[in-house]
Amino acid sequence: MDLPILHLKKHEERRLLSGHLWVFSNEADTALSPLNSFQPGDHALVMSARGKPMGVAYVNPASLILARLCDRDPKAVLGRDWLRARLTEALALRERFFDQPYYRLCHGEGDHLPGLVVDRYGATLCVQLLTAGMERLRQEVLDVLDELVRPDAVLLKGDVSARSVEGLPRVNETVLGVAPDTVEVPEGEGVYRASLEAGQKTGWFYDQRPNRLGLLPLCREASVLDVFSYVGALGVGAALAGASEAVCVDSSQAAVDRVLENARVNGVEPRVSALKGDAAEVMESLIQEGRRFDVVSLDPPALVKRKKDLEGAIGGYHKLNKLASRLVAPGGFLLTASCSQHMEAWQFTRVTGQAVSGRRKAQLVRRGGQGPDHPVHPAMPETDYLKSLLYRLTASQFREKD
Amino acid sequence: MDLPILHLKKHEERRLLSGHLWVFSNEADTALSPLNSFQPGDHALVMSARGKPMGVAYVNPASLILARLCDRDPKAVLGRDWLRARLTEALALRERFFDQPYYRLCHGEGDHLPGLVVDRYGATLCVQLLTAGMERLRQEVLDVLDELVRPDAVLLKGDVSARSVEGLPRVNETVLGVAPDTVEVPEGEGVYRASLEAGQKTGWFYDQRPNRLGLLPLCREASVLDVFSYVGALGVGAALAGASEAVCVDSSQAAVDRVLENARVNGVEPRVSALKGDAAEVMESLIQEGRRFDVVSLDPPALVKRKKDLEGAIGGYHKLNKLASRLVAPGGFLLTASCSQHMEAWQFTRVTGQAVSGRRKAQLVRRGGQGPDHPVHPAMPETDYLKSLLYRLTASQFREKD
Repeated sequence: MDLPILHLKKHEERRLLSGHLWVFSNEADTALSPLNSFQPGDHALVMSARGKPMGVAYVNPASLILARLCDRDPKAVLGRDWLRARLTEALALRERFFDQPYYRLCHGEGDHLPGLVVDRYGATLCVQLLTAGMERLRQEVLDVLDELVRPDAVLLKGDVSARSVEGLPRVNETVLGVAPDTVEVPEGEGVYRASLEAGQKTGWFYDQRPNRLGLLPLCREASVLDVFSYVGALGVGAALAGASEAVCVDSSQAAVDRVLENARVNGVEPRVSALKGDAAEVMESLIQEGRRFDVVSLDPPALVKRKKDLEGAIGGYHKLNKLASRLVAPGGFLLTASCSQHMEAWQFTRVTGQAVSGRRKAQLVRRGGQGPDHPVHPAMPETDYLKSLLYRLTASQFREKD
Repeated sequence: MDLPILHLKKHEERRLLSGHLWVFSNEADTALSPLNSFQPGDHALVMSARGKPMGVAYVNPASLILARLCDRDPKAVLGRDWLRARLTEALALRERFFDQPYYRLCHGEGDHLPGLVVDRYGATLCVQLLTAGMERLRQEVLDVLDELVRPDAVLLKGDVSARSVEGLPRVNETVLGVAPDTVEVPEGEGVYRASLEAGQKTGWFYDQRPNRLGLLPLCREASVLDVFSYVGALGVGAALAGASEAVCVDSSQAAVDRVLENARVNGVEPRVSALKGDAAEVMESLIQEGRRFDVVSLDPPALVKRKKDLEGAIGGYHKLNKLASRLVAPGGFLLTASCSQHMEAWQFTRVTGQAVSGRRKAQLVRRGGQGPDHPVHPAMPETDYLKSLLYRLTASQFREKD
């Protein structure tokens, strides 16, 4: 069966030729291929203005991202076999890095599966179908996942804003078994409880795992402050790694409750405390009280939602990082992160470098990114969102401007 | 005693105010402070055109980098106490990260000690005084190092091009004890022999240590190709980590001999081989022979020596990475690096991403940089030179252009 053709305007194939997977709505030749000839989720053959086939995409005429190229082969069929091949590749990658089945199993475009995110918590899968194109393939996705990893329970987490943009309903749905409200995630020496449905995003942040684990050797016998702690993966992990004290800060009561629960579950309750409140306000109070910590972690949610918000967000990052740096004891460390896709790595290095270099000098001793279960598509900066920097702040006062 | 003043031209204090440490020769107000009034290595108070003191620097009127700011305190004295404070800070950082005294103890500007590089191999130090300013402080540096780490032997490795630029003699000199020709460096599960004087750079590349160690879990039961292997730290390490086979490639006979010696010392001789030859030519031969490896490492020397060589070097990186990617078995990994300071991170990601994405897709699964004993000065891109990227190349043929 021949696919309908999505014709591009002249030169608009260039992004695709560079390896990128998206076609924006203003790049289609709507005279040759009227957008109202497509239904959301339809498959199409993308063609350059010179008639060169670019590959097979799925289309959503209602979205700014009109089409996502799924296969460069113009004869590809975006069905069960295609999904199986891609998901098998995705699974093989995770199995090279992780001994236990706890990871992001599929990371959308980074796994050449646009719009599909799958987090694996042992026998429970949390699946996000983020586009009309993936929604159309829903049954095939579920069948292939069932075949490959035999889950006991599958939650379709649909209550995410990306689905609204695609004109899809924002509902959560358990489509297999009974999805537990609470999952238990092993990480390092600990095990952490988190909520799939009520929690943030897909319930757990696998993306920061290597950065958390990499910080633990510095936490032995240290006092640790974990700002934007969520359920305490870093703070409780630090206590398990021998921290003398870990203070977690989060604005959500549910997160704070989970921190204390996770501290108890891991047997480090006496050394973990949790403060509920606005991060900046809590940090200001701690500064006033004269508190200092050997290790501070600052992991805010994305402050830049849209590109035009970047300028304002830079101010926000500056403020938070300056406060956090003032809480670092002499010779101590600050692990700071940004998961804002629109904040580029060099910008984040610049803003944090300026914010933390006050009277003391800052040394950047490690850079990190998202874990290997969140692969980056090298031609798609959009898939490369997490920046993590480890600063050491020297002990000496160099009498610079603060 | 009042220091002579180095006056800056109008607005030329801006780089210093942003945190940078260098003053270039065209930024001095030579009417107010004639360059011939300074001897190489003299100390000076740097002053903005508006008369604001910027701090104390050492000066070399014969160098393009006229002055390097050492302390923002205009009253600082660049002597023994100042060196002791800075080197104590530097030592404390390394002791937080490393259990054994094998590391770069001082990384110049990254440790706020412009021009001073110290590598520590147990009781042996390899010291580089890279500027006239540091050469002037030679005795103080040696005294403070003796006080802090009590070395048995100190080699001043002066045979480096940076010293020519500063008008200093390029000679090596043992200034304490008997510097051994061969040091033994522990790393991971192995121990590696390298030559201090005859070897490359300071004899050993501590900067790549975390990237090497991070690759080892992927080497178990894998076939490994180590291109630009030097003395085999990665290839022999991979064999120790359970690689079925490790092939090291280097153009230097001395390096190849060391690879085999290190394989023997670590008891993995049967699984390690070494090929002497030009990297590109050896890779082309291996491709012709149909050889494929589960893991390939590509760690060339800096291909961009000067900024104006960048364009040409990009072609060199493209060629090497394309060849290396063709040697990666289905679903395998390529660890690729650039230590060229003039190649920015985004450029290296772009050129390697394009080079390795052929008929197979590439996924970027990890980014690395120089180890924590090579701290980056956040305001000085010059101190941030090492880029390391780990790609996974998918198994499927996606029928893209090659």
